Amino acid sequence: MKIGILGYGNLGRGVEKAVNANADMELVAVFTRRDPAGVAIASKGVAVRHVDDLQSMQGEIDVLIICGGSATDLPEMTPKYAADYNVIDSFDTHANIPVHFENVDKAAKAAGKIGIISCGWDPGMFSVNRLYATSILPDGEAYTFWGRGVSQGHSDAIRRIEGVADARQYTVPVPEAVERVRAGENPALTTREKHTRECFVVAKEGADKAKIEEAIKTMPNYFADYDTTVTFISREEMDRDHAGLPHGGSVIYSGSTGDKKHVIEYSLKLDSNPEFTGAVLAAYARAAYRMNKEGASGAKTVFDIAPAYLTSLSGDEIRAHFL
Amino acid sequence: MKIGILGYGNLGRGVEKAVNANADMELVAVFTRRDPAGVAIASKGVAVRHVDDLQSMQGEIDVLIICGGSATDLPEMTPKYAADYNVIDSFDTHANIPVHFENVDKAAKAAGKIGIISCGWDPGMFSVNRLYATSILPDGEAYTFWGRGVSQGHSDAIRRIEGVADARQYTVPVPEAVERVRAGENPALTTREKHTRECFVVAKEGADKAKIEEAIKTMPNYFADYDTTVTFISREEMDRDHAGLPHGGSVIYSGSTGDKKHVIEYSLKLDSNPEFTGAVLAAYARAAYRMNKEGASGAKTVFDIAPAYLTSLSGDEIRAHFL
Repeated sequence: MKIGILGYGNLGRGVEKAVNANADMELVAVFTRRDPAGVAIASKGVAVRHVDDLQSMQGEIDVLIICGGSATDLPEMTPKYAADYNVIDSFDTHANIPVHFENVDKAAKAAGKIGIISCGWDPGMFSVNRLYATSILPDGEAYTFWGRGVSQGHSDAIRRIEGVADARQYTVPVPEAVERVRAGENPALTTREKHTRECFVVAKEGADKAKIEEAIKTMPNYFADYDTTVTFISREEMDRDHAGLPHGGSVIYSGSTGDKKHVIEYSLKLDSNPEFTGAVLAAYARAAYRMNKEGASGAKTVFDIAPAYLTSLSGDEIRAHFL
Repeated sequence: MKIGILGYGNLGRGVEKAVNANADMELVAVFTRRDPAGVAIASKGVAVRHVDDLQSMQGEIDVLIICGGSATDLPEMTPKYAADYNVIDSFDTHANIPVHFENVDKAAKAAGKIGIISCGWDPGMFSVNRLYATSILPDGEAYTFWGRGVSQGHSDAIRRIEGVADARQYTVPVPEAVERVRAGENPALTTREKHTRECFVVAKEGADKAKIEEAIKTMPNYFADYDTTVTFISREEMDRDHAGLPHGGSVIYSGSTGDKKHVIEYSLKLDSNPEFTGAVLAAYARAAYRMNKEGASGAKTVFDIAPAYLTSLSGDEIRAHFL
């Protein structure tokens, strides 16, 4: 299976590592909007090419994994490349999923290609677990907790504040809330009751720390609705203690069959968010390739894909070893 | 969707409750090998019929849910009824799954029907979670822990010992083993290190308790390889404290992307094993019906079924609410 990667940020590097770890996949090229000469990749002997080369590589790539941002990149890129390639993305702007699905579906169907959208762990593995649980126990409720882990969006939001040199934001589930859900209480929880936000900030020399802290804690959408702590640290402490991008969380579904309660929990503890997301994308890229070979086309999500399509093992093998 | 249930033990009753909880399903009849006049079911206005009536009800039932035992019932029943109906079972004799799959596949394909085998939570939801995890992280290992919960097979084994009036056996995961796996240690664990077995026994009057305890603890396959505790209790204590059939457990997958570790955990805490298993069977019965309407036939397992088939909600709805 010949794979192309479009975009070489944290996620692109995670996908690259995953593709190289799967014996049935071959990385053909990494595509970039930058000058390819200035982009060094981890894979030896693999070409870095300009994104414009995708205009004429249809015969050389089975699946193109698109590693762009959800705000502006993916809404434009995924439908565009679905007209020429089987594609997959990790689009996560929830409110815009219906429009994105529609656009990718139109392009992919016209081309006879598959376009998997919104793949990763949330949306992605968390989504399938929410769906499995509610399908089994229609009388129940799903709770999603994120963390402890680095939110890149929230870290970026802090970095944009005047006087901030660098920042790292951890999203942390409130242990009491998790325990109440796990106990089957089905509590009604406010935003503040579910998660806290821990911010580690390197201030620029001479910056007004009190003002920075105030700006973070009152920032609408990002922090105002949460109990937020701000800790100022040195550049050295940031580099030493906060270099990784760990993440995780859990989907806890609390449901019942009449008077009997049942709790289903799916949880992830990830050393590297982009590497795990990249691994999920690689597995679903395999599904895109195989389903397309069978004649399927159009936009798909994790809901539409049978688990057997994700593995390189045969039906006999998975029934023998995993059933 | 018109549902028939074959067999009315604990599982049959669990399926009945689940079917009645799903608005898009209608229970047509419960089928039994006993005299139907002697079988009272929970559903009002639903017929109890003799199993022989299935010879001529092809037009009245969309999916037949077969609630028999794996030892002798299902190997015979599921292929037999797959020749006339979409069927689903919870066959769990692991070593015989390939043969069972083959037999059901042949019958179902010839009839243009779907036959889902080995459905429930293990095999079933645990299986899909093992497969998802290994597909995402090929470099890793799956650990399955069962319990704390009642094993009906082990309880039955104790009941067959001379002098035993009643028994209940709980399978219990060893907390230290679970913690080591959760911590990503990938330990090699013996049978004894993974689970302990707690037995509660009502002895017949005058029975030799020491002899019963010895017979339990040395029973090959069932108990000899485990640390087993035996507690003698009264009939009243049995009825008061051990009437339920709770179960659960977890699949913990510990894998890596190079130097980064990731732990995926799926766990169940079930007040009633047969009611939860019944709920899983009902959801997959929906999938059997829908896939067959689309033209699919043959034997299937949970691996072959996309999550979207399990729910009565539309694609638009699940993308809006669960993705």
